[in-house]
Order: sequence, then C-alpha cells, then structure tokens
Amino acid sequence: MNFVRKILNSRSDEDGNFFVELEDILGFKTKRKKFYKKAFTHRSMNQKDTKGNSVNYERLEFLGDAMLSSVISGYLFNEVPSGNEGYLTKMRSKIVSREHLNELGRDLKLIDLVQSRIPKDNFGENIHGNLFEALVGAIFLDRGYKYCEKFIDYRVISPYVDIERLEGKVISYKSLLIEWCQKEKKSFKFDVYDDTGNDELKHFAVKLFIDNRVAGKARATSKKKAEEKASKRAYFAFQKQISQ
Amino acid sequence: MNFVRKILNSRSDEDGNFFVELEDILGFKTKRKKFYKKAFTHRSMNQKDTKGNSVNYERLEFLGDAMLSSVISGYLFNEVPSGNEGYLTKMRSKIVSREHLNELGRDLKLIDLVQSRIPKDNFGENIHGNLFEALVGAIFLDRGYKYCEKFIDYRVISPYVDIERLEGKVISYKSLLIEWCQKEKKSFKFDVYDDTGNDELKHFAVKLFIDNRVAGKARATSKKKAEEKASKRAYFAFQKQISQ
Repeated sequence: MNFVRKILNSRSDEDGNFFVELEDILGFKTKRKKFYKKAFTHRSMNQKDTKGNSVNYERLEFLGDAMLSSVISGYLFNEVPSGNEGYLTKMRSKIVSREHLNELGRDLKLIDLVQSRIPKDNFGENIHGNLFEALVGAIFLDRGYKYCEKFIDYRVISPYVDIERLEGKVISYKSLLIEWCQKEKKSFKFDVYDDTGNDELKHFAVKLFIDNRVAGKARATSKKKAEEKASKRAYFAFQKQISQ
Repeated sequence: MNFVRKILNSRSDEDGNFFVELEDILGFKTKRKKFYKKAFTHRSMNQKDTKGNSVNYERLEFLGDAMLSSVISGYLFNEVPSGNEGYLTKMRSKIVSREHLNELGRDLKLIDLVQSRIPKDNFGENIHGNLFEALVGAIFLDRGYKYCEKFIDYRVISPYVDIERLEGKVISYKSLLIEWCQKEKKSFKFDVYDDTGNDELKHFAVKLFIDNRVAGKARATSKKKAEEKASKRAYFAFQKQISQ
C-alpha cells in the first residue's frame, strides 16, 4: 500500500525537496508555506481544515486567475500607451488564454509537484493551467501583489509575451531569423532530437546553430513549435547584442 | 464662448478644488495628480499627450476594472472560506455588475468632477460606473495595489457588500428591521421627501426614526430603494451596538 501511495503521490515526501524545487520555479524564497502546499494538493487527497473546509488548489485558482489578469492588464496598460480599451482587452485574452496557461504550467513542470491519489495520466490537459493559476494565488497570499508582478514578469512576460507576435505582425520567428542569417551571410542549422523522457506526451528538443555555435535551445511538443521557440530566443538574443 | 465652456466644463477651474473634492471621496492624499486628471477627462476634450496618444479615462477603465475584480476576489476568498470556485465567481459578478458600479459612481457624484465638452445629460447611465473604474485605475497608478484595496474596502465593501444579502438569504432589511422593532417594542417611522435637486433623475431621501430618533438616512432613485438603504444602515448600526 505504501508502495502504491508512493507511486501516486509524487510530491517529494520531504517538504524540503518540494520547496527547493518550488523556489527554483518561483525565483524567490517562500514564507508562509501552507499556501503553496494547498496550491499543489489535488481534491482527490480529501484534505479538510479544522473547520471542515476542503484543502486543495481549486479556490486558489479563482484568486490566481484574478491576479494574473490584473498583472497582465497593468503590463499592457504601460507597454502599449496607444492601445485603446478594446485592443488591451483582446491582447489580455490572448495572453491568459487556457491554451497559453496550460503551456506555461507544462513548461514549469508543475504537475511533478502535485500531491494526488489519482494517477496523473487521468488529469487532462487543463491541470497545467489550473496549477499555474493556483500558484499565482498562493504567491499573492504569501507575499502580496508585488511578488505576483515579479513572478509573472519572470515566468510569463519576459519569456513568452511579445506584443508584435500577439498582434500577428510577426508570424514566424523562424522565417525572420532565416531572413536575417541570409542577409548577414551567416549559416544556420536546426538539430532536432526526441526528448520525451518521462513525459506522457511526446517532446522534441531543438538546438539552433548559427555559424556553428549554439544560438538557441528549446523543447516543445512538436518539432515546429520547438524550432519556433528556439528561433525566437536566438532572435531576441541577437537583437540585444545589436542594441548594446 | 468662455461662458459656454464654463457651463459645459464643470470640473472646478481651480485644480485645488478638484483635488479637495476628490480626496474627500478617496479618503487619502493623492500624489501623482496627472492620473486623476486623466480619470476625469472625457474623450470630447480631445486631449493628446506629446506622443499623440489620447488623454481620457477610457484606458484607465480597463485597468481599474481588472484591479476592482482582483480586490473583490481577494476579499471573497478570505471572507467565504467555504465557498467553492463557482460560488466565488458568482458572488464577484454580483458585486462588480454594471448596475452596481453605476450605483457606486452615482452615489459618489463622480460625474460632477468630469471635464467634458458635451453636456452631461447626454452621457447615459454607464458614465457613473466607467468613472468609478477609471478612478480605481488612477489609484493603482498613483499609489499601487494596497491603496486600491483600501479604497475599495472603504467605498465598496464596507458600505455595500453584504454576503448574506448577495446570497439572497436576506430579502429585505426593511422587514428585518420592522420585525426587530416589534420584538423590542420600539416605534419606527419612515420620513420620505423629494430630493431631486439638480439631478437629471428623480431622487428620494428617507429618514428612518426609531423611538423618535433618526436611526438611518438614505437617498435613492425610488422610495422603496431609499427605505431599504436606510433600513440596512440602521440595522447594521444596531447590530454593532448590540455586539459592543
């Protein structure tokens, strides 16, 4: 029985490990640990507090969803001073779309931290986004709004949000990068390999070489997505170099 | 022409007066004044900043709407520990409903502070809620999230939000109060008078006397609403006395 429980319940038995992994994701130290434990407790654990209220991440999703939406609103408000209300609303829904939240949660491997009595294969795709929202809710309760802003900037805005791309002005960073390499007379090559590991879904890893040096790496569920991600990273790295 | 402008543009010509009135509504001192000026500038003023971006309250509505929603979410999360996600979402939509926001903005007489080139009679009902949202957006930019929480607690939660009422458990404070008066052998009387003044809509003011002393006052667009409001205020005042 203990053996079965160990398989189903993959949160590190030692809270120590749980918080080491979590703080690596967060980029800061946690204070009130209980909120994070709740954010990674699935309802199947049937936990209750002393007053009989359920202890799991579902209510934290409600809170985190609202905080995420506010932080992104604040970001867009400052970032796009020419955008009207309708534009800002549209951009916000693209950033906080279910699909995007699932991608964020999956990339951070939040599912590895969940404590559950049902096998993780049964969770369905939305678990990733739900955990991401719950985590933002826990951050708010632990450290307040400022830390939500920091975390969302670190894990959502900096790596993923790109207004030009969201506006559909840039369709593909891969073609943008190829164009740039041709203009600058640089060679480029994508190295793709299977990187599924323990994941339930097939994953690909990509290394992008420019002039035979690694210029970007990425991992995604399709070859095309991984190439696009690596291209975007390389593109921004080059832009930074050029502007310095 | 100056005379016409003076009629249409009812923001106090002196910024001094504008901020005295505004800080009375806010309950705290403002720092970065420009955000509040923007929150009360109608698009008909055709103001632009040095980069050609429109200066009016419309973008601030987007920001304030998100902050309001977050603050109410945080409040409900803490206040109703037994409520699940669906319940919390339903309660939040009741509190931030268009109708409720219009009521909030109207009660604070935000429209008196607006700078506009079109007559205020042409604004329509939603101006009240829009200004309220824009004001919350300005507070966020000026003083941050904490002050949004303070302001919303002061002007929304404390005077208006009542979970029992929202849940439909309390249908009428008037009947609750009458019942209480009968039980306590106290006399009660509602004094209603017309209080339309300069408003475009008809308004009623109500004084509620309990044992011949004023126990609650209110003002609303119908006699019934004003009586209900006055009853609620008196009911909570009595509850406070009893619990002390």
